[in-house]
Amino acid sequence: MRILLTIAYAGTNYHGWQVQDNAITVQETFQNALEKTLSFRPDVTGCGRTDSGVHALKYCCHIDVPEKKFNIPVDRLPLAMNQHLPDDIRVYSAEAVDDEFHARYSVKTKTYRYRILNRRHKNPFYSAYTCHEPQKLDVLAMSDAAKAFVGEHDFSGFCSAGSKIKDTVRNVMCCSVTGRDDIIELTITAEGFLYNMVRIIAGTLIEVGKGTIPAEDIPGILSSRRRDAAGSTAPPQGLFLSDIIYKVK
Amino acid sequence: MRILLTIAYAGTNYHGWQVQDNAITVQETFQNALEKTLSFRPDVTGCGRTDSGVHALKYCCHIDVPEKKFNIPVDRLPLAMNQHLPDDIRVYSAEAVDDEFHARYSVKTKTYRYRILNRRHKNPFYSAYTCHEPQKLDVLAMSDAAKAFVGEHDFSGFCSAGSKIKDTVRNVMCCSVTGRDDIIELTITAEGFLYNMVRIIAGTLIEVGKGTIPAEDIPGILSSRRRDAAGSTAPPQGLFLSDIIYKVK
Repeated sequence: MRILLTIAYAGTNYHGWQVQDNAITVQETFQNALEKTLSFRPDVTGCGRTDSGVHALKYCCHIDVPEKKFNIPVDRLPLAMNQHLPDDIRVYSAEAVDDEFHARYSVKTKTYRYRILNRRHKNPFYSAYTCHEPQKLDVLAMSDAAKAFVGEHDFSGFCSAGSKIKDTVRNVMCCSVTGRDDIIELTITAEGFLYNMVRIIAGTLIEVGKGTIPAEDIPGILSSRRRDAAGSTAPPQGLFLSDIIYKVK
Repeated sequence: MRILLTIAYAGTNYHGWQVQDNAITVQETFQNALEKTLSFRPDVTGCGRTDSGVHALKYCCHIDVPEKKFNIPVDRLPLAMNQHLPDDIRVYSAEAVDDEFHARYSVKTKTYRYRILNRRHKNPFYSAYTCHEPQKLDVLAMSDAAKAFVGEHDFSGFCSAGSKIKDTVRNVMCCSVTGRDDIIELTITAEGFLYNMVRIIAGTLIEVGKGTIPAEDIPGILSSRRRDAAGSTAPPQGLFLSDIIYKVK
C-alpha cells in the first residue's frame, strides 16, 4: 500500500531534506518518527530536495507499507507521527494513493515563495524566515522584471555550478513580486526548477530593486545563459516550498 | 546623560530579561553588546521582567552614560549595537531623555498579547510563538468573558504563588479577544500587572473557550480571589509584551 504524506517544516535546524552522513536532515528525522510509530522503517520518497535552512509550508512524500504490517487507520498516522516529531516538523495529512502515484515523478507544478524583509533593522521574529535587505527596494521595478521569467526558457544562467542536469529548459507558469508593509514576496510556479534557480532569480530581482540591474535587462540576461550576468544566490532562509500540485493521486 | 532604548526580542533562547547566575538572559546579552559598542559597561534598567521564553515586540530600557565617554551620535547606537547582538535581539531606536525619566517608574501603561494557535496540528513556524490548543475554542464566549477583567479589581487570584507583592489591585484598561483564521489573540492593557497575571487570564479564557468555565462565572472567580478558582497558567511562548506607553520622556 502506498501512502502520500503532506508535511511542513521549518528548515532552520536541518541540513535540508535529503539523508546525508554526519548531518541531521528532515528526511532522517521523519524516518525515525515513522519507525517509532510503525515499529518498522519504510523508505521515504520525497517530492525533491531542499537545501540547508530552506523551509516547506507544504512538502509531500510517499511510503510503501505492507498492508498486514500497517495496523492503524491511515488518517490517524499524522497525529501518531506528530507525537514522535520535533515541533519544527509536522505531518498534516496522510492518504492511501494508487501504486502509480510517485511523490517526485507525479508532480505537475511546484510553487516557491521567497521572502525579503526590506527595512533598516532585522526583526528578531523573522530572521530565520526572511532575507534581510536594509536598502529600500523598488517593488514595482521588481514586479515588472519578474514577468520576464514567465514562459519556457533556458535557465542555465540561473543554475548553480556543479549541477549535472543536461536539459536546462524549464517552463515557468507564474512569477510575481508583491509588497506588503516591509515584506516583499516573490512567488514562482513551474513544472520543475534547476538547482538554486529560485534563489538566483530572487538575488537578481533584489539587484533590480536596488537599481543595479535595470528591469528591461532581464530578457537579455536570460538569453545570455551566463551565470555571472545574473545576480547572486539569495540566502536560504527566505525560501519556502509552498505548494505542490500532482497530475494524479 | 540618560538614553532610552527601544528593543525587541524573541525570548525562546533566553531565561527571561533579568540577569541571573548560570543562565543566559536578554539583559546580560544586551549589556555585553553595549560594552562591545561603547568600550565600557553601563547598567541597564529595564521596564520590567519577562519570564523565560516570553517575547517582546517592544521593550524599553534606559542607560546612564557620561557624556564625555559617549562618542557616537545617539541615533547611531541602534545600528552599532545590532552588529554585536544575535539576530533574536534588535535595537530599534535610541533617544536622549530627561534625567527624570525612568524605564520602569515612568510607565503609564503596558500592553501584552497572548497568542493561541487553535487547530488540530501545531504549525512548525509558530510553535515558539503560540500556545497550541487542538480543541476548538469558542471565540465569542472568550471575547465576552474578557470584558469582565476590565476595570479596577483585586487580581490576587490571578497571581502566581510566591509573589511578595502586597497591593494586588490593578487597573485593566482594555481586555479583548479576537480570532482570525486559526490564531486567537488576547490583548490586555493595564497600568501594571501581577506576576503571571496575563498567562493566568489567558489560561482561564482558554477554559472559557473550551466550555469548562462559563463566561458569566468570571466576575465571581475574580471576586473570590482564589488562585484555584481561575484556570491554569498558560505557557510562556504565547506571550508578547507588545507596547509600553510612558507618562513623560
